[in-house]
Amino acid sequence: MSSEKLIYLPLGGAGEIGMNAYVYGYGKEGQERLILVDLGVTFSDMETSPGVDLIFPDMTWLIENKDRLEAVFITHGHEDHVGAVGHFWEDLGVPVYARVFTAALARHKMKDRGAPEAEVITVGAWPEMTKAGPFTVGFLPVSHSIPESAALVIDSPAGRVIHSGDFKLDETPVVGEPFDKDLWAEVSRDGVKALVCDSTNVFSLHPGRSEASVGREIEALVSEAPHMVVATTFASNVARVKTLAEAGERAGRSICLMGRAMRRMIETAVETGVLKSFPKVVSIEDARAIPRENLMLLVTGSQGERRAASAQLARGKYNGMTLKDGDMFLFSSKTIPGNERGVIRIMNQFSEMGVEVVDDHEGRYHVSGHANRPDLEALQDIVNPQMVIPNHGEHRHLRQHAKISEARGRQSIVAVNGTMIDLTGNAPRVAGYVETGRTYLDGAVKIGALDGIVRDRIRMALNGHVVVNVILDEDDEPLGEAWCEIMGLPEQGRSFAPLLDVLEEDLTQFLGRANDKTLANDDKLEEELRRIARNTCNDEIGRKPEVTVIVSRLS
Amino acid sequence: MSSEKLIYLPLGGAGEIGMNAYVYGYGKEGQERLILVDLGVTFSDMETSPGVDLIFPDMTWLIENKDRLEAVFITHGHEDHVGAVGHFWEDLGVPVYARVFTAALARHKMKDRGAPEAEVITVGAWPEMTKAGPFTVGFLPVSHSIPESAALVIDSPAGRVIHSGDFKLDETPVVGEPFDKDLWAEVSRDGVKALVCDSTNVFSLHPGRSEASVGREIEALVSEAPHMVVATTFASNVARVKTLAEAGERAGRSICLMGRAMRRMIETAVETGVLKSFPKVVSIEDARAIPRENLMLLVTGSQGERRAASAQLARGKYNGMTLKDGDMFLFSSKTIPGNERGVIRIMNQFSEMGVEVVDDHEGRYHVSGHANRPDLEALQDIVNPQMVIPNHGEHRHLRQHAKISEARGRQSIVAVNGTMIDLTGNAPRVAGYVETGRTYLDGAVKIGALDGIVRDRIRMALNGHVVVNVILDEDDEPLGEAWCEIMGLPEQGRSFAPLLDVLEEDLTQFLGRANDKTLANDDKLEEELRRIARNTCNDEIGRKPEVTVIVSRLS
Repeated sequence: MSSEKLIYLPLGGAGEIGMNAYVYGYGKEGQERLILVDLGVTFSDMETSPGVDLIFPDMTWLIENKDRLEAVFITHGHEDHVGAVGHFWEDLGVPVYARVFTAALARHKMKDRGAPEAEVITVGAWPEMTKAGPFTVGFLPVSHSIPESAALVIDSPAGRVIHSGDFKLDETPVVGEPFDKDLWAEVSRDGVKALVCDSTNVFSLHPGRSEASVGREIEALVSEAPHMVVATTFASNVARVKTLAEAGERAGRSICLMGRAMRRMIETAVETGVLKSFPKVVSIEDARAIPRENLMLLVTGSQGERRAASAQLARGKYNGMTLKDGDMFLFSSKTIPGNERGVIRIMNQFSEMGVEVVDDHEGRYHVSGHANRPDLEALQDIVNPQMVIPNHGEHRHLRQHAKISEARGRQSIVAVNGTMIDLTGNAPRVAGYVETGRTYLDGAVKIGALDGIVRDRIRMALNGHVVVNVILDEDDEPLGEAWCEIMGLPEQGRSFAPLLDVLEEDLTQFLGRANDKTLANDDKLEEELRRIARNTCNDEIGRKPEVTVIVSRLS
Repeated sequence: MSSEKLIYLPLGGAGEIGMNAYVYGYGKEGQERLILVDLGVTFSDMETSPGVDLIFPDMTWLIENKDRLEAVFITHGHEDHVGAVGHFWEDLGVPVYARVFTAALARHKMKDRGAPEAEVITVGAWPEMTKAGPFTVGFLPVSHSIPESAALVIDSPAGRVIHSGDFKLDETPVVGEPFDKDLWAEVSRDGVKALVCDSTNVFSLHPGRSEASVGREIEALVSEAPHMVVATTFASNVARVKTLAEAGERAGRSICLMGRAMRRMIETAVETGVLKSFPKVVSIEDARAIPRENLMLLVTGSQGERRAASAQLARGKYNGMTLKDGDMFLFSSKTIPGNERGVIRIMNQFSEMGVEVVDDHEGRYHVSGHANRPDLEALQDIVNPQMVIPNHGEHRHLRQHAKISEARGRQSIVAVNGTMIDLTGNAPRVAGYVETGRTYLDGAVKIGALDGIVRDRIRMALNGHVVVNVILDEDDEPLGEAWCEIMGLPEQGRSFAPLLDVLEEDLTQFLGRANDKTLANDDKLEEELRRIARNTCNDEIGRKPEVTVIVSRLS
């Protein structure tokens, strides 16, 4: 038996939806040569990560082992797969491989961070293969909600692994390659050791529907709209943007793209040849001169993002365009869990303007880009892998996916971020654990999710902040009274006196009675002042705030 | 034509879901005698109201006019209809009328706030009527997801108004009165001026299903579960709690209620005679001794609330009970928009324990308590009102409800919070606007949503907080260096020096070069110090924080 091992190590995306990053390795234990598949981001939210700009997987382990890293391979151009390449290129220092459209998007990401665009290398689809240490890797086309998604065929001396990436089984995807069952069967013919597979839609029990199915419905809707039509979808869903634009065109409307992300995505798709035809678009300036009933705007912001075009239109105006009574706004998208409030806010703002909002609660104007349970089962039947390793999903998705795989006679395992799996034998086996977590991009700085910085912000948001300032002279005697500032707290409470006055009085009284030992000891003094400030606030306003104490000594 | 007017004025619940509060008035303009229907709360969230304990409608207008207020009538016992009675009783000082079960819940609310429970007066159902100034008010039974919900029949010299409250048309509601079509027709026979009607489910296009329909499904599920079963639903949904308990009992399981709200609700339902039979329950102590496969726990926390029983079980333990591999957890509930993250968190925690989580995405184990669009239309046909005034809903719900009402030949209007509607004539007419908004219960203090207090907390959460402290002597000369504290900010940035050091150096340098005029002027000095602190942070960490400046003068 060989002492070389084939390992799989998710660093992001396994135990969550978002920020995909998966390591494969081959070689002697602890000396495996490594490749990284995908390097994505996830987005912050007010509840857990206020003020954070972007969330990355914790790449510490990989950076520590970067001398063993051969290359990064990107399956497709969604933010949760490619969004972090620019942020970590300097730390990793290896080439990034992707197909032409994805590579163009990856180069944008590099450029945005001042990283060298030339380090992104464009490769062709299967049967082209790229050598990376002990691996050869091919990009096997598959359908998804962005053009040119690819599964990776990862060959090593220990056998073939297929890493599905995000996918659906769509034979009429409008833009990009249809799912080619015969090609997948051919690639799998000589035996596949492991299928590492997207789990996001495992709880959806009906077979997925084709992108082509929404076109007729959208066209019927748009053709009957009496006034202006505005539609939003994910900017990266080029097929949907095209479907929307063509529906508008057939209804005799001029098409205008609004929102930087959408324009950039369509331009990139055209430039790279992924998008062969697209209705003529008019500029925003020209659009303003076109009669509203002859116009259709395609806009960013399907998730209610506050700075996107849709939210700005909902608040009143975007690039000089406004919506009016009788216009229609179509959400050709689903709301990602957690974004409901933002989307509902926009819907109500449009309602106040008299705009007809059409959404997709019955699935008429949107289809998912991911494989549902029957599709996952169908893919297993085609690939016939020895093992199925569920990835990209919350714990419940991975677990369910492992369960249905085992029920079909496949070896499987639930491997969350940080779990190193040995794929060498006949069944997956836990080979170890690696510390993982989340890294926050916070302004210009990368910080750890557990560094306490964001925790302090959350505490200030929940509890308010009191600053206590005292000055002591050379003899450790208080000089004047305690001085406070409050932020995020009511100005008065139960006693109806200003909270600041009550605080300063209580603290000054304490200073008057504090003994020399306390006054001479910064830590002790701070602790006492904090305790008193918190208790006074609790008495007055029923809340114990965060307290910062500043002791200044004239010495 | 009489100069007396019948007015309707929503103060909460019209333009949002939650915190219902509706004023009716009759009399000469500006001197109308008033009644209030419902006095509810809504719940805070981290995004818009971090740290806030409860949200109330702004009652300022009503408090200013309390000499005209006759009484409060509560339609049913949900928090968004009764939750604020204890908080405003002292301000309003009028009796609160409700039916027996609702009154018992209202008395709990009064007691919790130290308000006199005796001010809650129990009244019977229609045809009993209560006189309140120019109004007589009757409680007309209707089905909903809490026992003993009632529409109000509000008679005045200007005619009869029916205020639906929350309702569904359920003829087999398991607990409480079935919807009685004949009774409603009889009440409406002599003409109804206005139907003021629940709008929450207007976008649901299928007729609502009966509470009785979920019993069989739940029973099938529970009877096949191999290990312990835990189920959660809204504590106030007494019918569902009973259905769950009976399903467990029939499957040979002992029933244990966990969570204060659920026990209190069932006890109150039994004590008031609303709940005639309920399976025998065991105490938590006894439950621990019962074999797991013979046990069913009914727990609070269907919305993922962090302190409820379900979330505590998901984190590990509640009252000594733990869940294990193979146990089942059933969400017999829907997730209210905005609560998805909390519910998903729990689901994944259970998944990690090996617990089977069953939820309701296909509507098998839960039905809504509100009337869907066909039900709203059916009620209009029964009541045959001159006007339909949509209430309880976001703007989009009210607008759609008005639209479908007008399409059926009814007069209608979209009246959001603060819009005073004159119902006297043949059509609803806007009679004026009243300032409204939201009042926050913040610890022990009521604050206005726009007071800036919560805004400051959100800013600290998004931007972090820097405190700058400088001391000036009697001659306005800086004494020592500037001193800073940071909270919620990275400790170092681009220069790799500690952020505090860079801040203090930049600020101290400024103090050294500042002219006498600036040093002598607190406002000017603070402004400059704030500007420098923000710029330094922006240079170092790419973020402009909130800055509090404390200038201490030894004078």
